[in-house]
Amino acid sequence: MPGLSSSNLAIGRQTAPIDVLFHTPAPRAAKPNVDWRKIAEELAPIECDLSSASVRRKSRDFFWFSPVLSTQLADVVADLVVSPKSEDELATLVRFCVARGLPLTPRGAGTGNYGQAMPLHGGVVVDLTALDGVKWLKGGIARVGAGMSLLQIEAEIQPLGWELRFHPSTWKTATVGGFIAGGSSGIGAINYGTLSQAGNILGLRMLTIEDEPRFIELRGPDVCKAIHAYGTTGLITEVELALAPATPWFEFVVSTPSIMDAVRLADRVAHADGVVKKELAPIDWGGAQYFDALLPYMTPGQPVLMAMIAESSVEPFADMVAESGSEIVFLRGPDEEKNDPPPLWEYCWYHTTLQALKHDRRITYLQILFDAPNYVEKVAHMVETFGDEVPVHLEFARLDGVVKCFGLQLVRFTTEDRLEEIMRYHWMNGCPVFNPHTYILESGGGAVADPAQYALKLKNDPHGLLNPGKMPGWDVPEGGFFNGAG
Amino acid sequence: MPGLSSSNLAIGRQTAPIDVLFHTPAPRAAKPNVDWRKIAEELAPIECDLSSASVRRKSRDFFWFSPVLSTQLADVVADLVVSPKSEDELATLVRFCVARGLPLTPRGAGTGNYGQAMPLHGGVVVDLTALDGVKWLKGGIARVGAGMSLLQIEAEIQPLGWELRFHPSTWKTATVGGFIAGGSSGIGAINYGTLSQAGNILGLRMLTIEDEPRFIELRGPDVCKAIHAYGTTGLITEVELALAPATPWFEFVVSTPSIMDAVRLADRVAHADGVVKKELAPIDWGGAQYFDALLPYMTPGQPVLMAMIAESSVEPFADMVAESGSEIVFLRGPDEEKNDPPPLWEYCWYHTTLQALKHDRRITYLQILFDAPNYVEKVAHMVETFGDEVPVHLEFARLDGVVKCFGLQLVRFTTEDRLEEIMRYHWMNGCPVFNPHTYILESGGGAVADPAQYALKLKNDPHGLLNPGKMPGWDVPEGGFFNGAG
Repeated sequence: MPGLSSSNLAIGRQTAPIDVLFHTPAPRAAKPNVDWRKIAEELAPIECDLSSASVRRKSRDFFWFSPVLSTQLADVVADLVVSPKSEDELATLVRFCVARGLPLTPRGAGTGNYGQAMPLHGGVVVDLTALDGVKWLKGGIARVGAGMSLLQIEAEIQPLGWELRFHPSTWKTATVGGFIAGGSSGIGAINYGTLSQAGNILGLRMLTIEDEPRFIELRGPDVCKAIHAYGTTGLITEVELALAPATPWFEFVVSTPSIMDAVRLADRVAHADGVVKKELAPIDWGGAQYFDALLPYMTPGQPVLMAMIAESSVEPFADMVAESGSEIVFLRGPDEEKNDPPPLWEYCWYHTTLQALKHDRRITYLQILFDAPNYVEKVAHMVETFGDEVPVHLEFARLDGVVKCFGLQLVRFTTEDRLEEIMRYHWMNGCPVFNPHTYILESGGGAVADPAQYALKLKNDPHGLLNPGKMPGWDVPEGGFFNGAG
Repeated sequence: MPGLSSSNLAIGRQTAPIDVLFHTPAPRAAKPNVDWRKIAEELAPIECDLSSASVRRKSRDFFWFSPVLSTQLADVVADLVVSPKSEDELATLVRFCVARGLPLTPRGAGTGNYGQAMPLHGGVVVDLTALDGVKWLKGGIARVGAGMSLLQIEAEIQPLGWELRFHPSTWKTATVGGFIAGGSSGIGAINYGTLSQAGNILGLRMLTIEDEPRFIELRGPDVCKAIHAYGTTGLITEVELALAPATPWFEFVVSTPSIMDAVRLADRVAHADGVVKKELAPIDWGGAQYFDALLPYMTPGQPVLMAMIAESSVEPFADMVAESGSEIVFLRGPDEEKNDPPPLWEYCWYHTTLQALKHDRRITYLQILFDAPNYVEKVAHMVETFGDEVPVHLEFARLDGVVKCFGLQLVRFTTEDRLEEIMRYHWMNGCPVFNPHTYILESGGGAVADPAQYALKLKNDPHGLLNPGKMPGWDVPEGGFFNGAG
């Protein structure tokens, strides 16, 4: 089977030994000598960029969040960036690349953290940002080009009374296609869970990577085969999003006596169905101390709960804050300028880590699931075990109808071994780890392929040219890359 | 302490023996000879009604849903109906009644089922429907007069992009004050739980029943002291409601192979956070067979799931229906006329029982909590145990952040003993009973007073004149009623 490696990673079953989960080998990067200038000429009039500065820039994402990936992927670089302006140009590009065995790595705005948009084997980075624009908008559903930025989408839907169900903390720059292909959840998770939950993403249009590329439509549960698949299962060109009613959100920073007070307060608000919210993130002082623009408001040494609350729920939320012995230290209405400090969500999700990294480049982070029902206890145990080495940062979510929380704790990095030890400890103590220190697509927290994603990959990318090196079980295809391009 | 009886019912503790829960004595109705015509003259210009037909009509609610209450309360009738047009008139009325020891029973539209608006000891029924109108409307909050009908409120808020978080199946007639004082939840429970959940009712303005009546405001958790208190703790004059974003709802009737298929489908949809809904009610054919206007659509013999789904969730909902082996037999868009059949919610909540009662006056109903996590098993057990004697009707809700369901099953009534046996069986098998066959205010499913409600009653109605006979621990006050009116 072309593209199928003899990898020792199990496919679709959780059989990978724990050690494999936390050790990803650095990618090979042996590339033959290809005349990329000639290729760019042949692709004309499709826009190609050979300038080494911009090719290098568009070969990167936020992989440097991880000290492991930072080392492993430092030298990863594409050979060419191609920016098709239409689906026709994209299909022409794919036909061209398949004929020559050129690997293709799709890219939105490059705001991912796992190297998911980085071309491990070089070749072509496909910049999809020109495939933008609203196709249609009706009844709380938006059909848009995958390259459209979340900011642009929000600008179109807000005047019609809608907003995104969730968005990453990189809302200002991320594209919707990149969010879907490389992300999984974000601000809004407390209401809608993750992108993969039924009803959030209604449809995806994709281009296959075949000798004769086809446009296909995934709908219903099938969309999960392309969500958080790093674009390995097809090139997403359009997305159909279910929206949420536009709500003017009030931003709160609450100072709490202890981090567990913040967690218990978040837990209470999360379960209060009458209190309408979009974001609930307890963050210990170990992380909050890096929130420069919020420092004038926060109480030094005290953990915070970051929250976005609907106007009609401001009073009951404030009641709960007061009852918990906590204090609202920052409150901003929806119509106030969000410049200084920036929007609250720019301190949440992956921006919590980013704010810390601005101060201390040795900081990195975890991705943990603290599952119901006893996640509060589990968090307390980790607080006790790791203290300020792993400052707590939780993001509350409702998943499959049940409140739980993701742990995006910061880690004061010392060595890879210690980082692995911390992750292994969580894993062994009932807290699944979604390792952010690997560029390998993981399924269920393990270094195994999702069987449905794997099956779609087999069908849509039989030559294994699409974002190679990311899906377990796939490696360099037989005959290698660049087989028709030398 | 005036108004405090030596009742054998425990106050604020769940100590009532099970037997007490299902046997409420019929009220006493010894009334002295009072010249009500003279009282009406003295109250002028406040509108009074002495006509026996309308006094009788306004002394009743839907108590005849219960064969037990039907017998017990058949002869309950007020002496006078007074309809104040303003808070000033209401305060005058209260001062007048307190001075003469006249019992007062507040009334909205009389759509309750438990005799909660029925004047057990006669006296004055206070018709509060003239205290209506929007006081203000801002940021998803509506402040309205308690006598305003839900229909009127919806007409005011819908054009501004809002709707009620929930409403009873009697939406067309019920007043908001009556809903809050006599109800507990309704269509929308799957999103917002019950009226008592924090954040749903933000404030209540009430008049106390004292020598010098005072207007007071309950806010925050204090509002629970007046929610579902049958107006025993004060006369509600204004309510402040948190609203939901207006959503065009699609109405679905789904035929399912078995009632447990309907339950499991509802369970799945209830937990699917990306599928936006307002109503999920599985109803067995034993109940659905009485839905006249839906008969042309339903499959004879098959249970149904009644659902209200947002437009953006129609496709994922339909996917789940298909996967469950069920079939959509009726689908109506939000803009279609809702005359024939009437709105779907008029087959849900207490209207399910009402539709059945139109055909068979021997039918009555239960109020059960099938609590998480294993409510599906509990329902299955009751289906197996009682079969068509107790046709399943569930209403899914999310309470304190957890999906569960209320059982409003129909009962093919034979004897009071058998009805009690059925309720006792549920109770003993882990399914709390909120007995709808008593006019006594129950707390936590038991014939005990809620301690907070009891404390407020002591303060606001020291003479025990307000809706007497409903709150456990209170009975006819020392000196009796009508002590200054003879």
